[in-house]
Amino acid sequence: MVRGEILQMLREEAGRYVSGEEASRRLNVSRTAIWKHIRALRQDGYDIEAHPRLGYRLCRAPDLLLPAEIKARLTTKKMGRAIAYFRRVESTNNEAKALAAAGCPEGQIVVAEEQSVGRGRLSRGWFSPFARGVWFTIVLRPPFSPQEAPKCTLLAAVAVCRAIRRATGVACGIKWPNDILYDGRKLVGILTEMSAEMDAINHIVIGIGINVNIGADDFPPELRGLATSLSLAAGRPFSRLELFLAVLAELERVYGQAVTDGFATVLDEWRGESVTLGRTVDVIGPGRRFSGKALDIDADGALLVQTDGGMERVLAGDVSIRTPERGAK
Amino acid sequence: MVRGEILQMLREEAGRYVSGEEASRRLNVSRTAIWKHIRALRQDGYDIEAHPRLGYRLCRAPDLLLPAEIKARLTTKKMGRAIAYFRRVESTNNEAKALAAAGCPEGQIVVAEEQSVGRGRLSRGWFSPFARGVWFTIVLRPPFSPQEAPKCTLLAAVAVCRAIRRATGVACGIKWPNDILYDGRKLVGILTEMSAEMDAINHIVIGIGINVNIGADDFPPELRGLATSLSLAAGRPFSRLELFLAVLAELERVYGQAVTDGFATVLDEWRGESVTLGRTVDVIGPGRRFSGKALDIDADGALLVQTDGGMERVLAGDVSIRTPERGAK
Repeated sequence: MVRGEILQMLREEAGRYVSGEEASRRLNVSRTAIWKHIRALRQDGYDIEAHPRLGYRLCRAPDLLLPAEIKARLTTKKMGRAIAYFRRVESTNNEAKALAAAGCPEGQIVVAEEQSVGRGRLSRGWFSPFARGVWFTIVLRPPFSPQEAPKCTLLAAVAVCRAIRRATGVACGIKWPNDILYDGRKLVGILTEMSAEMDAINHIVIGIGINVNIGADDFPPELRGLATSLSLAAGRPFSRLELFLAVLAELERVYGQAVTDGFATVLDEWRGESVTLGRTVDVIGPGRRFSGKALDIDADGALLVQTDGGMERVLAGDVSIRTPERGAK
Repeated sequence: MVRGEILQMLREEAGRYVSGEEASRRLNVSRTAIWKHIRALRQDGYDIEAHPRLGYRLCRAPDLLLPAEIKARLTTKKMGRAIAYFRRVESTNNEAKALAAAGCPEGQIVVAEEQSVGRGRLSRGWFSPFARGVWFTIVLRPPFSPQEAPKCTLLAAVAVCRAIRRATGVACGIKWPNDILYDGRKLVGILTEMSAEMDAINHIVIGIGINVNIGADDFPPELRGLATSLSLAAGRPFSRLELFLAVLAELERVYGQAVTDGFATVLDEWRGESVTLGRTVDVIGPGRRFSGKALDIDADGALLVQTDGGMERVLAGDVSIRTPERGAK
C-alpha cells in the first residue's frame, strides 16, 4: 500500500525531488519507513536517486509488468483489476486455475516476467524468457454453455490481434483457431482451459503469450524459422506495459460484446483478422488428415474446409497454411 | 500398512483368536505396536475382542467404506485402486478435482462417509448424511474430445443403474440425462465436471451420490416426496460396501467399452435403462421452456423431444417427466 503511494507520489513529481521529510508528512509514515520502501522499490528495478539534501527522485521505472505500474494506468473496469504477479512461475495458467477454483473475481490476471514451464496447446511448451514478452493468464466466468467455450478462444485472438496493431502497428493476422502470426511465423500463442459442469462453465482461463522484445538469436534453435517477435517484425523494441494495457482494454471490449450481444460480431471481427480463410490448408488429426481450401468459420467457430470429397468441419486438430510455391525448382 | 495387515490377518482367521505374540511374530512388529493398531482399528469402528490369554478376535467390521475394506474385495483393475477416504468432507468432487490437477491416476476415488457441502448440478446441494449412502467421486482421463464429455455422464448413469439392480434388485431407471429414479423419486444424483483444453480433456471427475439406508423421516422436509433411498424402496437395509464394489466394477466395464469401441453400445444401454423415453416431458431452460414427447437420444447424448412445432434437441436444462393424470378432477 504505502509502497504504491510512494511510487505514485514520485511519479506525480515527474522527475523532481521529494524530500524524505515531505514524503513522511504526506504519507504519514516515519522517514525510516520511507527509506525502507525506497530500498525495496530499487530492488524491484526502479531507478530512484537519493540526494542527501534534496531527497528522492524517480529517474526510471524498470521494464517490468509490476502491479503498481499496471494499476496506475489501467483503463478497464474488470479485466486486470485483480493481479497476481510473479517474477518467475512455472505456468501462469496453472496459477490462474488455482485462483479460479478458490473463487477469484472475473478479470483476475496472473502475470509473470518469466515462465519456467510455459505451456502451449496439447502439452507443448511455450518459450517465455524473462521480461521479453507479455506472459499472462486471465480468468473469465462467462454465462455461456461449455459448447460455446471454443469461441472464447477466437475472442481472445481477436482482442490480442487488434491490441497489437493498435499499440505497435505490426500487421499481424490470426491463424485458425488462435495463433497470431507475422510473416507466417508465430508471434502469439493462446491456451484456453476450462472447468465446467456438463451444462455450465465454472470458469475459463485464457493464457496469452506475446513475443515482444525477443531477438532472433534468443529463440532456441528449434523455434527459429517458426517463431518471431514484435521487435523483430518492426526493427525496434516496444513497451510491454503499453501493449499489455491495450490487450486488457481490447479483451474487455470484445468479451463484453460477446456476453451482451452474442458471438456474431466477434466471429465477424475474427474473419477480418484471419490469415487462414481463402488459403489452402493441411489439417491433421484427431484421427484424420486432409487438405483443402479454408472457406469460412461457422457459428460454432469451426473451420469449414472445402476438399475434393466435400466440405469438412474442423473443430480440433492442427491446421497449417500452405505457402504459395515460388517458381519451379 | 501394518494396520491393514493386522486386519487382513484377523479377517482370515474368520472370528478365531490370534494371540498378540503370534501377531507380533507374523507381522514382525512389537506387541505394543500391535496393541496400538488394534486400538486405532477400534476407533475406526471395528469390533475387536481382546482376550487376556487368547488374544484378538474380529467380531464385526464397521459399516464404513474404509479403504482396507474396499481394497480387500475390489475386483477392478483401475477403478478404485487409489483411494482418498474422509469421514467428513465438504465435497468429494472438490477433493477429486484437486487430486486430479495434482496428477492422480485414472480411477482414483474420493470416498466420504458424510459431505458437509455435498453438491448437485447447477449449484444445488446434495443431502449426504453420515454412513447412509455411497458418496464418492471418481477421476477419469478419457481420450475423448470435450464435446463428448456429456456422454460420460450417461455412461455413469448406466453403470450405477445396472450396479444397483445387480446388488439390490431395486428396479430403478434413468431420467435424462443422469438422475436415477425409483417410483418417480430420486435415488441417485450424478455431478460430472471436467477440466479441458479446447480440443482435449485434462480430466473428468464424476461425483455419484447413492441414497442407500436413509429413512423417510431422515430426509429434510423439502426433499420428502422428491427423494427416496434403496432401503425405502426395498423395505430393508443394504450393505453400502457391496453396492459400492458393484458400482466400481460396472464403471470399469462400461467405461472400458466406450474407450475401446465408442459410445454406441453405452447409448443403447442407456436407452434400455431410461424412464424418460416415450414419456411427455417439460423442458426448462436455458432460455426456453416447452413440452413434448421424449423420443430418443442422438449420437451426442442429446434428448430429442417431439413438440407441436417440430423436433427439439435438448443438451442442457431441466427435464421433468409428466405424471400420467389419474382420472378427472
